[in-house]
Order: sequence, then C-alpha cells, then structure tokens
Amino acid sequence: MRLVTFRPTVDSESRLGAIVDGSVIDLARLGEKDNTELPRCMLAFIDLGPDAVRVATELLEKYHQKWPSGTCLPLENVKLLAPIPRPRKNIFGIGLNYVEHVEESSRSLDTDKELPKQPVIFSKPPTTVIGPGDAIEHNAEITQQLDWEVELAVIMGTRAKNVSKETALNYVFGYSLMIDMSARDCRRAGQWIYSKGQDTFAPFGPCIVTADELTDPQNLDISLRVNKVTKQSSNTRHMLFKVDTLINDISKGITLEPGDIIATGTPEGVGAGRVPQEWLWPGDIVEAELEQIGAIRHPVISVT
Amino acid sequence: MRLVTFRPTVDSESRLGAIVDGSVIDLARLGEKDNTELPRCMLAFIDLGPDAVRVATELLEKYHQKWPSGTCLPLENVKLLAPIPRPRKNIFGIGLNYVEHVEESSRSLDTDKELPKQPVIFSKPPTTVIGPGDAIEHNAEITQQLDWEVELAVIMGTRAKNVSKETALNYVFGYSLMIDMSARDCRRAGQWIYSKGQDTFAPFGPCIVTADELTDPQNLDISLRVNKVTKQSSNTRHMLFKVDTLINDISKGITLEPGDIIATGTPEGVGAGRVPQEWLWPGDIVEAELEQIGAIRHPVISVT
Repeated sequence: MRLVTFRPTVDSESRLGAIVDGSVIDLARLGEKDNTELPRCMLAFIDLGPDAVRVATELLEKYHQKWPSGTCLPLENVKLLAPIPRPRKNIFGIGLNYVEHVEESSRSLDTDKELPKQPVIFSKPPTTVIGPGDAIEHNAEITQQLDWEVELAVIMGTRAKNVSKETALNYVFGYSLMIDMSARDCRRAGQWIYSKGQDTFAPFGPCIVTADELTDPQNLDISLRVNKVTKQSSNTRHMLFKVDTLINDISKGITLEPGDIIATGTPEGVGAGRVPQEWLWPGDIVEAELEQIGAIRHPVISVT
Repeated sequence: MRLVTFRPTVDSESRLGAIVDGSVIDLARLGEKDNTELPRCMLAFIDLGPDAVRVATELLEKYHQKWPSGTCLPLENVKLLAPIPRPRKNIFGIGLNYVEHVEESSRSLDTDKELPKQPVIFSKPPTTVIGPGDAIEHNAEITQQLDWEVELAVIMGTRAKNVSKETALNYVFGYSLMIDMSARDCRRAGQWIYSKGQDTFAPFGPCIVTADELTDPQNLDISLRVNKVTKQSSNTRHMLFKVDTLINDISKGITLEPGDIIATGTPEGVGAGRVPQEWLWPGDIVEAELEQIGAIRHPVISVT
C-alpha cells in the first residue's frame, strides 16, 4: 500500500489515504461503507499493527474501481501533508552512512576520513517536519550554509528492543523519503542537532510504502536536484550500515517504537562537498526522488 | 505550586497532583468538588496556559486544610512518576554549560578546552525518562563507562519562536531536576545521543515547581551523591549560558513548544573527570538534589 496523509480541502482535518490508480482513497470513509473501522490518522493506523495493513489491503481490493461515493478523490484535488505530520519523538538521523559521503565530508566538514565503525546517530525534532511542496525556511541570520541531503526514511511498525539483525526488518512498517536539511555553519562542538533540527528542515513524503510491498530497501535509486540540476544520484545499496543493522544497533540501547522514523543517511553530492561549495538560497527549488516511493519538491524561502 | 504526576495505587491510572503540607492533592478530583475542570495529566495542564496555574492555585488556597474527601492523599501512599512521564519529543540537553565541567571534560573526554561560544545542544528520546525511585539500567554489553550528570530541567509553558533574552523566562512553565545519565564509551563520531539516549537515562522529578513560585532559576544549590558520597556540589549561578539565553538561542531556529524540556547542563564532578575515573555499576545508588525542587534516588541495576 502507498499511504498518505491528506486534507480533502485546505481547511479540513487531515485524513489517512491510500494511493490507487492515481487517486486518493479515504481509508476511514471506505471502512465506514463496509462497517469496518479504520483510523483517520497514520500513527493510529501504525499502532494497530500488521492486521490493519491486511484489513485495509483487502478493502482496497474488494472495492477496486467500484469506489463508494465520497471515498475516491482525485490526487490533484487534495493537499498532501507529510505522511506523519507530527512524529511522537525526534527523528533518528544517521550520519556518514554512504562511503563516498564519508570521504566528501572529511574533506569539507570536520568529520573523520575513516569509515565509522558504528552508526553515527543524531536527531531532528518533530518541528522539522514539512509535507510535499511546503517551503524550506532560510534564515540568513543564523545560516549562510544551507545544504541538502536526500535519504531513505524507515518507519517503525512494532516496538523493538534488542532485536537481531536477522529479524529487524519484521519491525518495519514501511519506507518513505526525507530530505535531511543541514545548516553546516550551525554545528556546535560537533553536535548536529542545531544544524539539522531547525523548523522546516525535514521535508518528508509523498507517501509511506508499506513493507509488505517494498521488501528490499537496499536496492532503490535515490537522487536530488537543485533548480533541475542533479546533485545527488546513488542507490541505497551503497549504504554502509543497512536498515537491518541500524535497527539492530539502535535497539540495543534505545527502544524503538511504532511510528519512529529513521532517516538512514545521504549519499555523496551534498553542497558542502562540492568544489566550490554550493549552498541553498531563497528562490531555489529542491526536488528529491526515491525509487518505489516517489518525489517531493520544495521551494526555499527567506524568513528574515 | 509543586506539581507531581502520581498513581494513587500501583495499578491505577496516573493523575496530576500538587504537594501541599507533605500530602498529594488530586487536582482533577479537587476541581470536580468545586465544579471546576482541571486535567489529570501534566501535559494537558501545561497546554491550558497560565490560567490553569492561577485557577489551581486559587482552589488549593480555598480548600487548604479543608480537603474534600478523596482529594488529599498521604505522599508515602502514592507512587510518584516522572512529572512528565512521556515527553512529546526528545529532551533538549545542553553540554559543557558549567565552566569547571568544560575543563574536566577537556581533560577526560574528547571536548575542547575553550569555553563554547554558543550553547552545545543534544537530545534524549522520551524513552529515557524514568520517575523517582525507578532503576537505571546498566547494560554491560554496551557500556563500561556509565556516568552521572545532575541538572536543572526547564519545562516550557508557551510556544516560543525567536524570543528575546529579556522575555524568555515568561515562556517557562516551571523547573525540575534531571540526571543526564551518560555512557561515555557510547559516543560516536562526536555525537552524544547514543551515549545519553539509552532507556532509563533520564531520571526526572520529583516535581515541577511552577515559575510563579520559583522566580530565580540561577541561584539554586545542586548536588549529586553516589552511595552517599557527594560527587557533585555546585549552584546554578555557575551556568555558562543561563536559562534565558538558552531559550533565546534555541528558539532562533527551533520552535520550543509547551511541555518541552531543556536539561541545562551539569556542573563539575562527573565520574569521567575524576582521578582515577569512576563509573556506576549495578548495586550503586545515585541521589540527586536541587534546592527548591527536592531529591530523587535511583538504584543502578544490571540488565544483561
């Protein structure tokens, strides 16, 4: 299933939807027509566990192309939000998780040349999240080095503590796309949260593809363009620590919970690593794309 | 007001209480007796804004020593939880925020000798929080360097974006005490979240004292003992970046929200900075105390 969070109209409450044949199916409303209870909110849906995915999948098959009135909306008529507009904790970010990006970072930032021996973890507050099309804020009073990082996002489905690498993917709800916006000149004593944690610094979407449909997260083309020029182009197979290893590693010390998001790191091609260095400025357009997930497009605007 | 979150009995739902004359007053129940609606949950109370503090204070005065039946419980009969058992995002932690601690850290850890020019920010997931008396987990498979850090915790009351230093304290709901447990050998490429973010690594309590009652957060004795031996003893006046500066600084880029917690950094005397270095082991007892707030006491237990 390709799940989205959307507003039918600009002012309406957000709803949970599934993308089918280019339309949005309102899952709670479809459920009502079938006397089957389904939630209106992605986090509530994730909390219901794998049964909810199965029930929703069956409903979508049952009513396919016979959508009851009011359940099927043209995609272009709705406003897509981030799939999880408000995570329940900070997003887990992974740094230095593609070999070539470790190399470019050691040249241009203050990180080691050596490959990390364990995943490098940081976080982004829930207030960083924006949905497809929303503006990325450029605050010239605090940064002159706004940079891009396109990433595969993992959405946890089940509580995970101390889970093995072999079973780790069973705990995943699905996958999405996130841009880990980074103000390089806002790092402090090596800590990244202020550089990566500012409002609007986590463009996220357009959908979550559930893990029953996207079974191999390590073979997805991933790319990013600025003003239509490709800056990053790689494949998730080049990750240093794969998704199963990340879940195994984090869960040794930190309980992962349903709805938790792990942004799994970015490949080479960030602005800081280019010669000369390139930064984002108001008026720029950032587009990111991930195979099987889709694309998001965000303008950069000034907020000073 | 001295606010707590508590369970009347082991199995019951948690409630919001105020400590008066050594007893716990159940605020929602006291409200019911007065036809005044008050929430059962600290975060819901904080969300109501300054009016709720005023209404609750008036109720406590009105019924003082004439408590209606079922509203006043002996403190020793209830189970205190962390004042906010489940924060809505990661706790903001501040590193290197006392001059002497910057010095000891540069000797024993990998941090700079120079005083930081801006606050050094990191985060601790909501899953780190434990309440008074709860056990701190020592996982020997991932750390042999478990350390203590006693800190003043600031609880935000009002949404704060880009607020001045002069008005910053107006956005504070109240203050509490937190231990920023730190597994020194779990730092990764300079990032601290894995060392400070493990389950049970944020003992928190016993209460929140509201900002109308605790008006000067920068003159509080703060101390920590391990097995009854004093290891840290300082005063919040020695903070490098004071609470008003922290709020001003963070809110320039990151919106602070009601219920957000800022752990403001620890004074000198951590285990890493001692000669020889000292670490916590299963069986140890950690006690922390903060003037005007109170004390918390936590055993360290093995989880391997």
